[in-house]
Amino acid sequence: MEYRTAGESHGQGILALVEHFPAGLTIDTDLINAELKRRQGGYGRGDRQKIETDTVEILTGIWRGQSTGAPITLWIKNSDCRIDTAPDIAQPRPGHADLAGSVKYNLPIRPILERASARETAGRVAAGALAKQILRQHGITVVGFVKSIGTFTLPNGDGFSPEELLERRNRSALYTAFPEKDAELKKMIDGIAESGDSVGGVIEVRAFGVPMGLGSHVQWCDKLDGKLAQAVMSIQAIKGVEIGLGFESAKTLGSAMHDPIGFDAAQGFVRKTNNAGGIEGGISNGQPIILRAAMKPIPTLLKPLESVHLVTKQPMPAVYERSDVCAVPAASVVVENVVAWEIANELLEATSHSFSVIQNSPV
Amino acid sequence: MEYRTAGESHGQGILALVEHFPAGLTIDTDLINAELKRRQGGYGRGDRQKIETDTVEILTGIWRGQSTGAPITLWIKNSDCRIDTAPDIAQPRPGHADLAGSVKYNLPIRPILERASARETAGRVAAGALAKQILRQHGITVVGFVKSIGTFTLPNGDGFSPEELLERRNRSALYTAFPEKDAELKKMIDGIAESGDSVGGVIEVRAFGVPMGLGSHVQWCDKLDGKLAQAVMSIQAIKGVEIGLGFESAKTLGSAMHDPIGFDAAQGFVRKTNNAGGIEGGISNGQPIILRAAMKPIPTLLKPLESVHLVTKQPMPAVYERSDVCAVPAASVVVENVVAWEIANELLEATSHSFSVIQNSPV
Amino acid sequence: MEYRTAGESHGQGILALVEHFPAGLTIDTDLINAELKRRQGGYGRGDRQKIETDTVEILTGIWRGQSTGAPITLWIKNSDCRIDTAPDIAQPRPGHADLAGSVKYNLPIRPILERASARETAGRVAAGALAKQILRQHGITVVGFVKSIGTFTLPNGDGFSPEELLERRNRSALYTAFPEKDAELKKMIDGIAESGDSVGGVIEVRAFGVPMGLGSHVQWCDKLDGKLAQAVMSIQAIKGVEIGLGFESAKTLGSAMHDPIGFDAAQGFVRKTNNAGGIEGGISNGQPIILRAAMKPIPTLLKPLESVHLVTKQPMPAVYERSDVCAVPAASVVVENVVAWEIANELLEATSHSFSVIQNSPV
Amino acid sequence: MEYRTAGESHGQGILALVEHFPAGLTIDTDLINAELKRRQGGYGRGDRQKIETDTVEILTGIWRGQSTGAPITLWIKNSDCRIDTAPDIAQPRPGHADLAGSVKYNLPIRPILERASARETAGRVAAGALAKQILRQHGITVVGFVKSIGTFTLPNGDGFSPEELLERRNRSALYTAFPEKDAELKKMIDGIAESGDSVGGVIEVRAFGVPMGLGSHVQWCDKLDGKLAQAVMSIQAIKGVEIGLGFESAKTLGSAMHDPIGFDAAQGFVRKTNNAGGIEGGISNGQPIILRAAMKPIPTLLKPLESVHLVTKQPMPAVYERSDVCAVPAASVVVENVVAWEIANELLEATSHSFSVIQNSPV
Repeated sequence: MEYRTAGESHGQGILALVEHFPAGLTIDTDLINAELKRRQGGYGRGDRQKIETDTVEILTGIWRGQSTGAPITLWIKNSDCRIDTAPDIAQPRPGHADLAGSVKYNLPIRPILERASARETAGRVAAGALAKQILRQHGITVVGFVKSIGTFTLPNGDGFSPEELLERRNRSALYTAFPEKDAELKKMIDGIAESGDSVGGVIEVRAFGVPMGLGSHVQWCDKLDGKLAQAVMSIQAIKGVEIGLGFESAKTLGSAMHDPIGFDAAQGFVRKTNNAGGIEGGISNGQPIILRAAMKPIPTLLKPLESVHLVTKQPMPAVYERSDVCAVPAASVVVENVVAWEIANELLEATSHSFSVIQNSPV
Repeated sequence: MEYRTAGESHGQGILALVEHFPAGLTIDTDLINAELKRRQGGYGRGDRQKIETDTVEILTGIWRGQSTGAPITLWIKNSDCRIDTAPDIAQPRPGHADLAGSVKYNLPIRPILERASARETAGRVAAGALAKQILRQHGITVVGFVKSIGTFTLPNGDGFSPEELLERRNRSALYTAFPEKDAELKKMIDGIAESGDSVGGVIEVRAFGVPMGLGSHVQWCDKLDGKLAQAVMSIQAIKGVEIGLGFESAKTLGSAMHDPIGFDAAQGFVRKTNNAGGIEGGISNGQPIILRAAMKPIPTLLKPLESVHLVTKQPMPAVYERSDVCAVPAASVVVENVVAWEIANELLEATSHSFSVIQNSPV
Repeated sequence: MEYRTAGESHGQGILALVEHFPAGLTIDTDLINAELKRRQGGYGRGDRQKIETDTVEILTGIWRGQSTGAPITLWIKNSDCRIDTAPDIAQPRPGHADLAGSVKYNLPIRPILERASARETAGRVAAGALAKQILRQHGITVVGFVKSIGTFTLPNGDGFSPEELLERRNRSALYTAFPEKDAELKKMIDGIAESGDSVGGVIEVRAFGVPMGLGSHVQWCDKLDGKLAQAVMSIQAIKGVEIGLGFESAKTLGSAMHDPIGFDAAQGFVRKTNNAGGIEGGISNGQPIILRAAMKPIPTLLKPLESVHLVTKQPMPAVYERSDVCAVPAASVVVENVVAWEIANELLEATSHSFSVIQNSPV
Repeated sequence: MEYRTAGESHGQGILALVEHFPAGLTIDTDLINAELKRRQGGYGRGDRQKIETDTVEILTGIWRGQSTGAPITLWIKNSDCRIDTAPDIAQPRPGHADLAGSVKYNLPIRPILERASARETAGRVAAGALAKQILRQHGITVVGFVKSIGTFTLPNGDGFSPEELLERRNRSALYTAFPEKDAELKKMIDGIAESGDSVGGVIEVRAFGVPMGLGSHVQWCDKLDGKLAQAVMSIQAIKGVEIGLGFESAKTLGSAMHDPIGFDAAQGFVRKTNNAGGIEGGISNGQPIILRAAMKPIPTLLKPLESVHLVTKQPMPAVYERSDVCAVPAASVVVENVVAWEIANELLEATSHSFSVIQNSPV
């Protein structure tokens, strides 16, 4: 499978074109819409999310509700289409693509910010939610949640089953695994909002039920961890990605890091720990995949940042557009769905690597 | 440009095939060999590095020392070729591709570990060192160094010029920016070696002189940060990647995070800070690119880890093969070179995005 | 640049997603619509073309009429959307994807024929017409015309200038270079229609003004002739592709085949002949590119072909759906536009191969 | 699977790097060497073929004779390595990449002709012969043979079984299906040689045992006929490709063109004719795949062609290098093997398209 997105923040809509999705699967658009809605939610969002109510329309690739093997177009119409009349801005906003994009493409800032906007992630979420329908058939569950906001870190959720984790996450206004901490977090966010500032956080994704053998060690660009890292780092505002112990592993001695291999008649190969986060040598090892992403604070601030006029080069504060104070919950939905995509994609690729599989193929 | 590697740890050699390298450049093989040698060095390595003395041979793609536009084959012969006679191992080693690779490909462990071995990084270093010859023409310098080993973190090297950083790094037996700390670090590593353990660390890469406009915001898979993340995370033993403030940015408020934009007649657009690490919106912004990678400790330990026999499933300790105690310095060479590759590649791609460039093209 | 199409014959519409189109170009939608209209015309078409009046809508990637570097979505709405209610057919039609597609995807025939339909070529024409806007800036003109229909071959148009060729082609109801032959051809087609049969033909495309150096000899998949061959052979109903003398070259001795090289102060390198059709060694040589494609007759016939019921396996005639008797003129529009796409694409790629170009790049 | 070649005519050797070849297959190097030898044979070759005796060496990707899933490097050493001392030539040879390549890459002619040389096809043959080992497991036989040389066309071989066709082809010094015509053909070629000229011809490939369902109708670049066309047209000296009736289909009425579908209890779906050449809608339909390629005469002639000096622009005859009079038999080996590659590749891809396959996957 492959997918690409298209579309602008205030254009006609956001599109995801999905190729080589397997044929014969009944598509659940409610599941896609539920993820789109979650992406628009989470405590700390601005007013824009009240304007948009994202709903997917499937323009191509299905017949009587089923996938056909043909390219699938997911279309999320913008209710607020005014790209051609929206005013251009003269001063590039720090933390955005404004300056470098405008210079690279030799264009005003407006067309750059329109495409660079995080609204594009609606397309990535839609594609991931489509891919989840493959995962569902294989009993794979991917859960993304907020691990920390600013300096406030939630407890570790290692003990939770996939169902518990989902249930807790769905109960939290901040998409954490500890809804009982919502009140504290909301208070913190309200304080930041009042001071005209913004805040980031850390997102964790856990994928349960992933079989052994996704990805490969044979080539650098086939490695599952590398693919996940690209998929996640390319999300707007993400500045770091780690798998398993991640940066902590740099401080851990070898004897404490690596997950001993055991065998259990019922479960097959088992591990006492999962410090590797489910990936060894670029291949899934049958343990849950655990990934974390660091999100920087939203760069659009009520207290404007310093900038200069693109033409006159005179100092000028960056303009304020209504924005979010904290978009970490929303970003957790994006990270979850891009991880789901990558796992589903590897699942489809994993059939053709061993010759014994080929010999038994139904072709 | 594209590149792929081939080859096994105890096979005939390691190969990198580089496509679409620009024509007409005189290739400096000494520069490639110097990087290969650095990859084999660094305090804390095992005996294998004394066996191999990697030297590149260019099998294809050059004529009288110059690149021709044709595919370039970089070949690093193994002096220790015995893949077919090396004994297979029955118990998969935790932390390696052994178990998942063997199950995925339905093969014994030996052919899996041969390809999954970090010896493959000789090919990635050779390709990166070739790409550096493009960077040199543009005044771009990429410096990788060790930021921390285990719990020992070196000071920040923000004040150093590229030249100073290189000079200091080249003086350090551990490839840090603080050779004056070598003695302390060696002592720490010796202690870990004596206890039969291994240790990882954090690597930092800084790329100076990168122009504005590499990468793009237009598609998730075009973003420079995503490409760097894949390239680095796919290196053996890397468990985390961050850019600029990285995970720290999740704790930093928006007003302190984003780098104010100024203008200076001599330097063009300037920034007081570089918390973004040189990339905003997936595009280089003209500031130095700063990336860090977390390396886990080497999983081959003198104190063996628990495993089971692949066939009988009986508990059995993982075998010890002579190995490194600390390969963080070596890995810093790999990270530096894969980052150099990605930047050089984007530099070549960057000519064709603006229509004005096309109109002036010499075609 | 890359492009993919999506959409079904009786679905909501046909889409082309174009990536990496250069920024800053004012898009001429009239030019796209004119090509879409031409694709629907040509003597010998069935009634369907009277239902559809294809018009492109640009959903993404433009701002105030200009390209922005972002993905461009070309959308051609179907006026006849009834994919979910259209009856399935039980007997696969010879000459179509029906049988093999249905078996491969384990689906009824309807969803297969919906995507396999030549209506998909509306998307390819739209993408090609977009690419022509790059060609226009470089003075490159691509003209497709009908060379023969059935056993009726038109004279050779070697003497015509690009302008003459275009003017003549545009005057012909059959898109040939000899409108004076229209009456004869119409009579032939009418006769075939009356007998309930269909007819194919040969299409020729000439690209004038193509600079030397597009494509490359360095790798089999970089060769311009190979790329053109794939682009054209993948068009519905095309069974052969040739360049320059093509199959005739197999009968021609070397001394008569190869185009002598001369030099002229005004024109640079010149050739007395163009038997190579403008491509030598996989690279454009500065002469007009000449390509021909063979189109088979439309397989949907009033006199039905023999088939069997997909489930019962009982003999059953293939069903007749209203169709064209001769779609060669329409196909000539498709071949012209896919050739235009490939040339424009190579033009954009051609800037980054020589190192001297890189050194002068404005990055 | 993917493959790329590298290497120059008088460089150290020719290389093919094959990625994603399935694991666990015992590699038969004799089969590869037999194909390399056939490529060097055929009546009408020059002296170079007596210098080289191509033998493959597998540098990477196998363990104890078996594929491992890792990249496979096929290396064919040149016995005549003198690229750096071979004299440059000043006048570009018509019919070669010399002129356009030299201008595009801003290089002398020597490095261009070295890579553009048909010696590169040794790598393509080696890769194809490797891929045939997958086909062998599926009972697929691909046979290439010479259909015509110059104006001399051999009879049609429709009645022959795969075994008969192979046996006859292997008995012919010209690799035709009619060894009884060898004497006549040799005489014709001798006559052309004496006159200092060269001659081309038409090659036919038939692939028997190809299952229904390879390739796809869903996207233009997934179509099997398009992929075959690119693979074949990109071979040195090929100017045309056709499938089934090919250009003849343009002259054939619909009622005579399309292959009626029947059903037979023993064979499944059957066809009375195979005018489609085994591909409908871009998908294999279970009938033998039939493809023809037109090869132009070799452009290096004893009677030199007109050219000019690259620098002075003064008229100067093209230089003569010892060459072949007729390389059509050799090219038939190349076409056969590149077709074999594409079919094997599609066979591996064909497992993951239907969801029912995924559900039963052994992952």
